[in-house]
Amino acid sequence: MINRKETKKVMIGDVGVGGNEPVRVQSMTNTDTRDIEETVTQIKRLEKVGCEIARVAVPDMKAAEAIAEIKKQIKIPLVADIHFSADLALEAIRQGVDKIRINPGNVKPIERIKEVVIACKEKKIPIRVGVNAGSLEEDILQQYGNVATAKGMVQSALRHITILEELGFEDILISLKASDIERTIEAYKELSEKVDYPLHVGVTEAGTKFRGTVMSSIGIGALLYAGIGDTIRVSLTDDPVEEIPVAWEILSALDLRHRKPTVTSCPTCGRTEIDLLKLTKEVEALVENFPEKLHIAVMGCIVNGPGEAKEADIAVIGGKGVGLICRKGEIIKKVDEKDLLTEFKKELDKELKSDLSKNLK
Amino acid sequence: MINRKETKKVMIGDVGVGGNEPVRVQSMTNTDTRDIEETVTQIKRLEKVGCEIARVAVPDMKAAEAIAEIKKQIKIPLVADIHFSADLALEAIRQGVDKIRINPGNVKPIERIKEVVIACKEKKIPIRVGVNAGSLEEDILQQYGNVATAKGMVQSALRHITILEELGFEDILISLKASDIERTIEAYKELSEKVDYPLHVGVTEAGTKFRGTVMSSIGIGALLYAGIGDTIRVSLTDDPVEEIPVAWEILSALDLRHRKPTVTSCPTCGRTEIDLLKLTKEVEALVENFPEKLHIAVMGCIVNGPGEAKEADIAVIGGKGVGLICRKGEIIKKVDEKDLLTEFKKELDKELKSDLSKNLK
Repeated sequence: MINRKETKKVMIGDVGVGGNEPVRVQSMTNTDTRDIEETVTQIKRLEKVGCEIARVAVPDMKAAEAIAEIKKQIKIPLVADIHFSADLALEAIRQGVDKIRINPGNVKPIERIKEVVIACKEKKIPIRVGVNAGSLEEDILQQYGNVATAKGMVQSALRHITILEELGFEDILISLKASDIERTIEAYKELSEKVDYPLHVGVTEAGTKFRGTVMSSIGIGALLYAGIGDTIRVSLTDDPVEEIPVAWEILSALDLRHRKPTVTSCPTCGRTEIDLLKLTKEVEALVENFPEKLHIAVMGCIVNGPGEAKEADIAVIGGKGVGLICRKGEIIKKVDEKDLLTEFKKELDKELKSDLSKNLK
Repeated sequence: MINRKETKKVMIGDVGVGGNEPVRVQSMTNTDTRDIEETVTQIKRLEKVGCEIARVAVPDMKAAEAIAEIKKQIKIPLVADIHFSADLALEAIRQGVDKIRINPGNVKPIERIKEVVIACKEKKIPIRVGVNAGSLEEDILQQYGNVATAKGMVQSALRHITILEELGFEDILISLKASDIERTIEAYKELSEKVDYPLHVGVTEAGTKFRGTVMSSIGIGALLYAGIGDTIRVSLTDDPVEEIPVAWEILSALDLRHRKPTVTSCPTCGRTEIDLLKLTKEVEALVENFPEKLHIAVMGCIVNGPGEAKEADIAVIGGKGVGLICRKGEIIKKVDEKDLLTEFKKELDKELKSDLSKNLK
């Protein structure tokens, strides 16, 4: 069992992050925020696959002014991503945004960030301090030989946090993103020892779908495994909707949260005597939309099959043209390969207390 | 920089594993080993994508007898995966196999494993002890409340190792696979403190391609990040050829080994003003087959673009219809979006000292 570090809880709209809340899944739109229809369409697609918090870029006043209308049409909380401008932040807050991502040290003069903080306090809106290795302050870079180090990233975050704390504001989340795994892990680990604010975890600029999935799985995975991370963002150079299944798979792989049953299946080898890949894909498709935790094992032979079956709620072990169906390690049926999916479906129906026949392809 | 634990070096054919050798990429065929043509075809496909060691299941004598002919037709070392049978191991050795995977404690009576060890010594063939959580010995399971724990897995491995060591054999590799990440990490970390033999690392029965990629990235990634692992196997319920790019991507993500240039690219957002996904995919396709280490960044806007460009060998930063091309952080060209790929290709050509035009789609 992963021992999650306890952090302060903050509310983003009606979604709690930190404290005893589950690790939240979030993403960011890549539409033009001023195009309300396109942005809402993308957020609805994100909601459908399990995104719990959506962020939009707010590069100008017209984007800020779109927020109220976008919020009206979506269900999940909305975050405004703002650089440098107090005016944009204040407008986003007026529009009813649920969180602001802004780095207070970048807002000049300091009086302007005070206005933002007062507005956030009034509406109970949290602020995320979002440090990126790619945009570290010049003076911090110089301290570390003009290189963006993990220590420099932590120092930058603490500087922004101090500004907020000195203004009596503690409704804070923090992220520390780098485009490589080592700095990402090092920076979050160091910051996690220094503050109790909830952490938004991710590897930034992770690349296209395949590379980004591997990068994010390693980086976010290592941090979650160490108990660090209250909300996660998988960054992919792709449709942001693609990010959500990766985020959920990371949470499921670490047994932190499950959005559907998990399927353990063996890689098959020269010993496998049934079409395991086909069977596994069919089983996966079958349970894809069942929002329940269930451990299913699909195994190709008797070497590791019985052991894995023992640990699964329900399992199939393939043999030569036949399959054994097990429940909690007990063999309950022996069936012909051709009937395996149908028979397995019946057992899954019992397990999930629902009728899977409509899902059966 | 990851500080790899130093292990003893063993040779699998002409491929060194452990010591100062790079982390090796391996896989296992899922063909019928007795079908020489099909098995060779699959191994050749594995070789082509970067597999460095191939394993075949040897469930019967006919499979063992196929080994010499398979070896004749392939370039990479071949491993025989054997359960329980000294006869199959001895035949595989006679056939010229490069490594045996067998658990000595499972070969009865003990005299039979002596014969195998003598044959391995004579031919300088290493043995991998491969413990799987799904097939732990009964007496060990019972010590831990009938549950396959990480400690039980380590105990099982040490028992097998002791048998080999008592026979004066130390040409050993070890794996400790479980189908969940926590046990996998815990078991390898504990064993790594106890022995200096090279470790073969993987998460077993990790699932189909998507889940297996995430599971393996987290599990193998966490171990490699901790300096543990001399050879890796990504297990997917799929064509084993699919496992190799995942393995290489894990190594590349951790900057341990590179088989092609790495492309850092931003997730795009409402600020992005060029078609970044298209450009990134084109750049990736361009460098896919260049076996050189090179860090390329493809960034969508000026917020993090310049910082990332500074850390990359060569970078593009997109603006409104234009792009900046940078080399080691210095802007060297400003070009129209329509000419960006062509111009970038020219710069890549210089960097890679080769003609990329043939790769340009």
